[in-house]
Amino acid sequence: MTKALVLESKGKLNIRDINVPNEMGPNDVRIKINTVGICGSDVHYYTHGKIGPFIVNEPMVLGHEASGTITEVGKNVKNLKVGDRVCMEPGIPNPQSKATKLGIYNVDPDVVFWATPPVHGCLTESVVHPAAFTFKLPDNVSFEEGAFVEPFATGVHACIKGNIKPGDVCLVTGCGPIGILTALAALASGASKVFVSDVAAPKLEIAGQYEGIVPVNITKESLEDKIKAECGKDWGVDVAFEASGHPSAYDTILACTRPGGTIVFIGMPVDKVPFDLVTAQSKEIRMETIFRYAHVYERAVNLIASGKVNLKPLMSGIYPLSKAIEAYDRAASVQPTDVKLLIKVSE
Amino acid sequence: MTKALVLESKGKLNIRDINVPNEMGPNDVRIKINTVGICGSDVHYYTHGKIGPFIVNEPMVLGHEASGTITEVGKNVKNLKVGDRVCMEPGIPNPQSKATKLGIYNVDPDVVFWATPPVHGCLTESVVHPAAFTFKLPDNVSFEEGAFVEPFATGVHACIKGNIKPGDVCLVTGCGPIGILTALAALASGASKVFVSDVAAPKLEIAGQYEGIVPVNITKESLEDKIKAECGKDWGVDVAFEASGHPSAYDTILACTRPGGTIVFIGMPVDKVPFDLVTAQSKEIRMETIFRYAHVYERAVNLIASGKVNLKPLMSGIYPLSKAIEAYDRAASVQPTDVKLLIKVSE
Amino acid sequence: MTKALVLESKGKLNIRDINVPNEMGPNDVRIKINTVGICGSDVHYYTHGKIGPFIVNEPMVLGHEASGTITEVGKNVKNLKVGDRVCMEPGIPNPQSKATKLGIYNVDPDVVFWATPPVHGCLTESVVHPAAFTFKLPDNVSFEEGAFVEPFATGVHACIKGNIKPGDVCLVTGCGPIGILTALAALASGASKVFVSDVAAPKLEIAGQYEGIVPVNITKESLEDKIKAECGKDWGVDVAFEASGHPSAYDTILACTRPGGTIVFIGMPVDKVPFDLVTAQSKEIRMETIFRYAHVYERAVNLIASGKVNLKPLMSGIYPLSKAIEAYDRAASVQPTDVKLLIKVSE
Amino acid sequence: MTKALVLESKGKLNIRDINVPNEMGPNDVRIKINTVGICGSDVHYYTHGKIGPFIVNEPMVLGHEASGTITEVGKNVKNLKVGDRVCMEPGIPNPQSKATKLGIYNVDPDVVFWATPPVHGCLTESVVHPAAFTFKLPDNVSFEEGAFVEPFATGVHACIKGNIKPGDVCLVTGCGPIGILTALAALASGASKVFVSDVAAPKLEIAGQYEGIVPVNITKESLEDKIKAECGKDWGVDVAFEASGHPSAYDTILACTRPGGTIVFIGMPVDKVPFDLVTAQSKEIRMETIFRYAHVYERAVNLIASGKVNLKPLMSGIYPLSKAIEAYDRAASVQPTDVKLLIKVSE
Repeated sequence: MTKALVLESKGKLNIRDINVPNEMGPNDVRIKINTVGICGSDVHYYTHGKIGPFIVNEPMVLGHEASGTITEVGKNVKNLKVGDRVCMEPGIPNPQSKATKLGIYNVDPDVVFWATPPVHGCLTESVVHPAAFTFKLPDNVSFEEGAFVEPFATGVHACIKGNIKPGDVCLVTGCGPIGILTALAALASGASKVFVSDVAAPKLEIAGQYEGIVPVNITKESLEDKIKAECGKDWGVDVAFEASGHPSAYDTILACTRPGGTIVFIGMPVDKVPFDLVTAQSKEIRMETIFRYAHVYERAVNLIASGKVNLKPLMSGIYPLSKAIEAYDRAASVQPTDVKLLIKVSE
Repeated sequence: MTKALVLESKGKLNIRDINVPNEMGPNDVRIKINTVGICGSDVHYYTHGKIGPFIVNEPMVLGHEASGTITEVGKNVKNLKVGDRVCMEPGIPNPQSKATKLGIYNVDPDVVFWATPPVHGCLTESVVHPAAFTFKLPDNVSFEEGAFVEPFATGVHACIKGNIKPGDVCLVTGCGPIGILTALAALASGASKVFVSDVAAPKLEIAGQYEGIVPVNITKESLEDKIKAECGKDWGVDVAFEASGHPSAYDTILACTRPGGTIVFIGMPVDKVPFDLVTAQSKEIRMETIFRYAHVYERAVNLIASGKVNLKPLMSGIYPLSKAIEAYDRAASVQPTDVKLLIKVSE
Repeated sequence: MTKALVLESKGKLNIRDINVPNEMGPNDVRIKINTVGICGSDVHYYTHGKIGPFIVNEPMVLGHEASGTITEVGKNVKNLKVGDRVCMEPGIPNPQSKATKLGIYNVDPDVVFWATPPVHGCLTESVVHPAAFTFKLPDNVSFEEGAFVEPFATGVHACIKGNIKPGDVCLVTGCGPIGILTALAALASGASKVFVSDVAAPKLEIAGQYEGIVPVNITKESLEDKIKAECGKDWGVDVAFEASGHPSAYDTILACTRPGGTIVFIGMPVDKVPFDLVTAQSKEIRMETIFRYAHVYERAVNLIASGKVNLKPLMSGIYPLSKAIEAYDRAASVQPTDVKLLIKVSE
Repeated sequence: MTKALVLESKGKLNIRDINVPNEMGPNDVRIKINTVGICGSDVHYYTHGKIGPFIVNEPMVLGHEASGTITEVGKNVKNLKVGDRVCMEPGIPNPQSKATKLGIYNVDPDVVFWATPPVHGCLTESVVHPAAFTFKLPDNVSFEEGAFVEPFATGVHACIKGNIKPGDVCLVTGCGPIGILTALAALASGASKVFVSDVAAPKLEIAGQYEGIVPVNITKESLEDKIKAECGKDWGVDVAFEASGHPSAYDTILACTRPGGTIVFIGMPVDKVPFDLVTAQSKEIRMETIFRYAHVYERAVNLIASGKVNLKPLMSGIYPLSKAIEAYDRAASVQPTDVKLLIKVSE
């Protein structure tokens, strides 16, 4: 039995003891959880009881963005030891699958992912996890930053797929948590300047604090005009990231990307997108999609440790486990001044 | 003055003498035209008088798929000589543009392209052309094959963008001339097998003559089932090419491509496509678009010369210049048993 | 106990019964061996008792190029069944290693490889092997061709690393078994022409049978002159493969590769190579190295099944297991007319 | 006639008036030179009278690292205007060459490069240069920084070839000007940490000022041990840059690079290198070479403007044109505390 934040069913959260699998295998580690971030998907399960085909049919522990301290290691584990401060990759693929063997384990159809029904999440006192998906935090990376590795990994993965070259000019449409983290990842990946567009002034204000980010409020100015002014009339950004999922973003992002440029689609639109393929073709634009991330955690930790990525302005609130429901309710109320709320499970 | 097939205006063709630019520069060659293929775009200008923003406002010579013999060379030309049998790349970029300097001259907004209003085409007795865009035909490549290099180059370019690896299983949706040529290019690029789908039995019959091509009539069987049977239930083709532009193709091609696979969009749909981006994302599919080709002519000629690509079954009819209008009328009638009609301008 | 060809110690072979590990795990299959090819490394262990740090200190079964038929499957195995004709990838990586997780399992330092001391090979009646490294042979691929997949995979892997584009002109220096198989892989991967150079006329004669291969006897003509005549004075081949390991090849291959071209180093020279780095730099040549192969078996089988690769001219002799020592003695005598000898273990 | 620093012959410099070509073409601009950096190649022509096949047979103006102000523009020039502060790419390729068309103009054999005999350099009052190779400096980039773009471009080009991914750990062997600039480029390109090795303590002290650079004095500690401690016993850096040209560096860099990693060879060794190819093969290391740079100036300027690259600690001395000979003599004396000396031609 362990104490956890349990989503009993749509709209009903409890902090209570629950039984979750906790047997150690020889390649596993046991981790005392320290900090867990709240993700939009956690909130969506809370408010809607499902995401697409994934339905909450029985009580499920929430949370998949976590850091903690190792308290036990399996007998084959060599790269980690008791006392190591760590963060954990929440998806565990099937080692026998074709995708996993190829190294693209994130698209393994058999992957098991924290807080995706019926799999329990990690907003609990302790978890057992494979050592291969557990990553040591250097001394200068805090537990709070460790909990940020998961969403930041999405941005880093998008930048790797976008194949940013040093000095590239980039664009991120959508200034939510993933949009901002993608912009920071782009700067850390070599971009010289990143335009970030949104309709919400408070979000853009947060993004605009960072040197290298140019916030663009599309309710007040034309994103396309602004980018043409920077890049030239017949040109555009080298790499663009769509992080809003909003139908109106797709025409804009095509207009703002240069001939021979790249668009990475991160945001997941609710419906099919009416897509102007001919415009993409006339500029021979490459389009990448991402699904979570693979082989990115270590890189993300390294970048945070290097001091290149300042996550502090994005920590909008930290709550003890006892107040986790309050935190979820705040997250569900969608404040434009909030980027990320964190739950402190232990000290 | 030179004799040419002139599109006077929508629906009105004449074979007559016309003045076209023919001054030689130091880097140019003069070519006596031998064979010119009829492309769907030529026919579309004939039947509709325009393609998108390109409108036939004054008489224009048609044709951009050509081969011929060099009759004069500019003083700086070193790689070609009088008497060389050649084929010609129909688009000439601005050497000062950013895209051209980068080597992606096909997306140079300033490119000048044969038979794209107001630029005259090459269905005429003789043309002047830059040597850098004129390519020698080896002895074992005929003038008719030389006229095929242009459409074949599109298929080769698509395969380069698709980054086919040896042994890949591929799919081409759409069995028109470009679809078939893309399938042949895929086989020549390392594909071990290429599924080609269409609704027209006669086209599929032509494609099915080639070893390595598996024709699929989607009015009679499920393309997705057939591909899952070959590639596995959770898998799909490595590289897929959309060559129909038909709205129904986009869902199918997403369903048939493997996790981590690639789709190359060749066909240009008339309207925006309702695109299922989330399915692409869940498999992390890469999507490439192409616009004509760049740096492909020499490769295409080499492949034809190597004997890997048999173009003869695709030559559906050869007409003398005097019967060019008859050939155009046949092309305009869209026979499913026709792949490509050629005009023989000289012997 | 199983009958096997056992290398007792340097120079001493026996065909005898021996105990080899044969417990089945849930992800394993048991295979009745049909055909095993003789590789240069097998012969080298026979004649020298070691290769670099790998020393034959106790009796070892030889052989790692094999095909056979499945006689038993582990309970988790889904993609294979009893009776399937298969070929097997001889190296098994550690699933927990960093390299394996990245998908580059061939460079996993912990890999266990058949017939590399102290690991037994497969020239025996039956073996147990992981299903993930066992590949079904289509009906039109014979057991003899199945035994060729291993060395052919090296050539295919080299071509993938070389990133051959359709229509490329290639060069292979060295016309041994791997050189020829690399040339065939290059043609199947899109090369329009492959020059193959050597000093041994009989080997070149075998290679020269294939359309697309241009054999060059460097005792009689200049390879560089021949390539400049084809590619132009200031140019060269697009992708070159060094498959001889001979010190004299390195200057030549640099001279024959075009600016911006690629060299793949396959042959392993005995000593350090005096390498003309400045010449490579002045043409900005990319250099790839390969170590065995990864993710190539399925591709190699597909290419053989497609009919693109004719292996029959390379099967220089087939011996029953009872005459395996005779076959090894012939291989050790290094006949320039021999490419590959095969041992038929069962019918 | 313009005033210039003229290398009359080996060892003999004059500041004097000289006639250099100065006719404007329609695509050219005229630039009043502001600042010119001193490169090792300039110094080598001064001290040795030649570099390889390039011999100073007649008086030649030195200098190729320059910034200035536009005073005249050709009639076709659109992207630049009089008064623009600019830096200039010193090599001009032949627009008709195969390499230039491909976009790899740096390896065009016909390239004309400043201060490479018999071509005059730019350490003069004014030059005429193609607009396509002239790049605007933003207001926050000084003329001194503009003169640094040329050597920095080499480092950026090396990073692009190395294909640094965000979070990579890198190594640069050799802490001369190019080594330091490559390390800074690597950090700006996404590296989380860069080890820089050398034998000269003063150079390492300069490099060690930068956050993210770990200087390693190989006379005092083992580079390999240090890197294994960071990256793991069986692992190494992701991307390594050889920037010393010293024969001893090649074994070390192979030992320090991870399986599947990349080495970029920047330093040009005087003689052939005894290269341990088998070690490279056993780790399947990719090796890139670079020759100057292509398409990098704009990126380099963007990175400097972004504030990611602090060049000030590398400006070891600034001299007026009247004292240019003194500056060259200081450069020729090779002070380990000097990184780059600059000549201020005008204010």
